[in-house]
Amino acid sequence: MDKNEEKQREEEREQVVSPWEVSSSGKIDYDKLIDKFGCQRLDQSLVDRVQRLTGRPPHVFLRRGVFFAHRDLNDILDAYEKGEKFYLYTGRGPSSEALHLGHLVPFMFTKYLQDAFKVPLVIQLTDDEKCMWKNLSVEESQRLARENAKDIIACGFDVTKTFIFSDFDYVGGAFYKNMVKVAKCVTYNKVVGIFGFTGEDHIGKVSFPPVQEMIYKAVPSFPSSFPHLFSGKDHLRCLIPCAIDQDPYFRMTRDVAPRIGYHKPALIESSFFPALQGETGKMSASDPNSAIYVTDSAKAIKNKINKYAFSGGQESVELHRKLGANLEVDIPVKYLSFFLEDDAELEHIKKEYGAGGMLTGEVKQRLAKVLTELVERHQVARAAVTDEMVDAFMAVRPLPNMFD
Amino acid sequence: MDKNEEKQREEEREQVVSPWEVSSSGKIDYDKLIDKFGCQRLDQSLVDRVQRLTGRPPHVFLRRGVFFAHRDLNDILDAYEKGEKFYLYTGRGPSSEALHLGHLVPFMFTKYLQDAFKVPLVIQLTDDEKCMWKNLSVEESQRLARENAKDIIACGFDVTKTFIFSDFDYVGGAFYKNMVKVAKCVTYNKVVGIFGFTGEDHIGKVSFPPVQEMIYKAVPSFPSSFPHLFSGKDHLRCLIPCAIDQDPYFRMTRDVAPRIGYHKPALIESSFFPALQGETGKMSASDPNSAIYVTDSAKAIKNKINKYAFSGGQESVELHRKLGANLEVDIPVKYLSFFLEDDAELEHIKKEYGAGGMLTGEVKQRLAKVLTELVERHQVARAAVTDEMVDAFMAVRPLPNMFD
Repeated sequence: MDKNEEKQREEEREQVVSPWEVSSSGKIDYDKLIDKFGCQRLDQSLVDRVQRLTGRPPHVFLRRGVFFAHRDLNDILDAYEKGEKFYLYTGRGPSSEALHLGHLVPFMFTKYLQDAFKVPLVIQLTDDEKCMWKNLSVEESQRLARENAKDIIACGFDVTKTFIFSDFDYVGGAFYKNMVKVAKCVTYNKVVGIFGFTGEDHIGKVSFPPVQEMIYKAVPSFPSSFPHLFSGKDHLRCLIPCAIDQDPYFRMTRDVAPRIGYHKPALIESSFFPALQGETGKMSASDPNSAIYVTDSAKAIKNKINKYAFSGGQESVELHRKLGANLEVDIPVKYLSFFLEDDAELEHIKKEYGAGGMLTGEVKQRLAKVLTELVERHQVARAAVTDEMVDAFMAVRPLPNMFD
Repeated sequence: MDKNEEKQREEEREQVVSPWEVSSSGKIDYDKLIDKFGCQRLDQSLVDRVQRLTGRPPHVFLRRGVFFAHRDLNDILDAYEKGEKFYLYTGRGPSSEALHLGHLVPFMFTKYLQDAFKVPLVIQLTDDEKCMWKNLSVEESQRLARENAKDIIACGFDVTKTFIFSDFDYVGGAFYKNMVKVAKCVTYNKVVGIFGFTGEDHIGKVSFPPVQEMIYKAVPSFPSSFPHLFSGKDHLRCLIPCAIDQDPYFRMTRDVAPRIGYHKPALIESSFFPALQGETGKMSASDPNSAIYVTDSAKAIKNKINKYAFSGGQESVELHRKLGANLEVDIPVKYLSFFLEDDAELEHIKKEYGAGGMLTGEVKQRLAKVLTELVERHQVARAAVTDEMVDAFMAVRPLPNMFD
C-alpha cells in the first residue's frame, strides 16, 4: 500500500455513517455528510417558510438545527402551499424494551410535524426484521413492538390521524405486493453503489440484511401500501423524518418510486443524539450508561449525568474560571440544546459557562432537572397508555378526519 | 483430474434431479433417486393398505407406480386408522397460461386423495415467486394465478373442503410469521447440504431463489399458517403429493417442522410425466411440441402424437412384426399407462404391441382418442368454472365440513 492509498484509507476510516455503522474519530462532520450523501442543507429560509406555512413557531429541533438536512422538502411545502396535503412516515425497529432519549427525538419531532401540518402519519414497527436479525422469537418481537408502541403513543400522537403497524401483523396484501415490486427494481449494482460495497466484500453484506431492510423501509413511502388510508390517492406525497444515517436506504426508495408510479418521498434528516460519553457517534444499546432511558429514575438520571456526561469544563475551578468551558465538546450543553426549550436561558448558560462564570456542576444540575421533568412527563403519559389504546392505534381502519 | 474423478463426475452428470433441474443421459433411474434422497419406496402393501382404509380402489397413478415413493406415509395412515384426519397440501407456480398433462397429474391424484380420505386441501399458487423470478408484473402473475386456479378447480375439487390461495393475497399474518420462523431455522450449511452446493458455487445459487422458494413452500405444511381452517389444530398432520424433484425442499421443511412445534409433513412422490420426445426428463415449457396442453384441439393432439411421440416400434413393419416394440422407451404406451384406466385393455395393448401384433400407428390412434377425451372433458369442466367459483375457492373462510 503506498502512502496516498494509506492516507485515503485513513480519511475514510475517520468518519463512517451508514445505516449499520456510525463511527468517527472525532466529531461527526455533518457538512461533509451532506456533500457525501448529496442531500440539501435545511437552511434558515426553509425554517422560516415552515413557520409561515404552519402559523406556529418552529420546533426547537428545527430552529436549533437538530434536523439539519433534507431532500425535496421544498416540493412538499410548494404542494402544501397550494392546498395539497401529504403524509408522514416514520418507524422503529423494536429490539429493546426501554427507549432512550435518542429514540424519542424523531417521534417528538414527528408529533410536532403532525400537529403543525395537520397530516396523517404511519409508523412502522419492523418486528419481523428484529426477529430475523436479533435472534428474538416472533412472540417476543411482537411483544417488544407493542411495548415500544406505548412509548410512541405517549409522545402524544393523534389517534384520528395515526396508524401504527407491526410488520408481522400488516405485511400482506397491497403492502406485500409493493415489497415485491420494490425488490424487482433494486439491482445488485444499485445495492453495491448505495452502500459503497466492493466486489471483495463478503456475501453477508450484499445479500440479505441491508437489501431486505431497504425493502421493508421503502414500502411505507408508497401510499398504495395503505389501501385503508390512501385508496385512490396514489399521488399523495410522503415526508419521512429520520436520522441522517437512514439516507442511503431512502435514496434507493427515491430511485424506485417514480419507476413504480409514485412521488419520491421527501426526507427531513436529523443529526445524532450524542452518547453521554461524547459526540463521536450514536448511543450504544449495549452500554446502559451511555444513555438516559425513559425508564430511568430521577436519581439514575442525576448519577449518569454527574458520572458519565462528558464535560467541556476545565480541570480545575481556577482554570475553568480563567478559560471557560469548551462548548463544542460539552455534552450537558449539547443535551440542553435538545431539551431546554427556553432560548434565552440556553443562551445565558452557554455564555456564562463558556466564559467560566458557570461551573460544570451547575450546568449538570440544570440538565438533570430538565431531563427528569421530561422523563417523568413521559413516564406519566406512558402509564396512561392502555392496551386498548394500542389496539386503537394499530387497528387497520380508515381515518376519515386525517386531513382535517 | 484423475480417471476416478472423471468417472465420478460422469456418473453425476448422468442424472441430475433437483427442484431446478431434471436431466439425464438416459431414462431416469428412480430406484437410484430413492436411495440418493433417502425416501421410501411406495410398495404394494402400502397400496393395499390405502385401498383397505379408504374402501375404494387405488387410483391408477397409485396402482401403476406413478406415485412410487413417500416419506412417513405409514404414519399418516396409522393416525388415520385411529380416526385422526390430516390435510393435503399441494401447489403450483403460475408461470404460464395453459397447463399440460404433466401439470394435471398431481392435481388429479390430489383430487382422488381428497375424495378417498375425505380431508381438507390447501393449494398454494406461488404468484409472488413467479413475479420475482420470471419477470412478470404483479398484476400479470395474479391473473395467471386465477387462470391456473380455473384449471385446478376443473379437476373436480370439493369447494367445501378446499382452500386455494395466491401468495400475493394470502401472505401476511400467521403465514408471514411462519415464513420468518422457517427462515430463522435454515442455516447456510443446511442449504448448501440440501442442494449439494459447494463453496465454489456462485452467489446466485446459495442466496435468494432456492432459499426463498423453500420458505414459501415450507409454510403451508404447518397448520397454524391457516388460522381460518386449523385454529387450535397445531398437531394436525399434513400430506403433500408432489413430484420427486420437490423432495429436497420438503426435506428442509421436515427438518424445521419439529423445531417449531409441528409434525413433519408426509410426502407422496411421483415420477415425472415424460415429454413426447422421450423419457429423459420433464416436459419443457419452452417447447410446445414437447407436451399435450389442456387447451389443445383434437387435431393438435393427433398431430403431436403422430409427429413427436417417441416410438419403441421397429423401423419397418416387417421388423416390427418380427421383434415387437420396445415398451421400455415407447411414449404412447407410457402415456396410456397414465391415462387409460382399463387395466385389461392396457395389458392387452402392451402384450400385442410388445409382440409385434399391434403397430405404432394403432397404439398412437388409441392414445389420441384417450387424450382427446381427457382434454375435452377438462375443457368442458373448465369452461363451466366461473369467476365467482374462483372467488369461492379462494375466499379466506372457515370450512366447517372439511373433515366430514
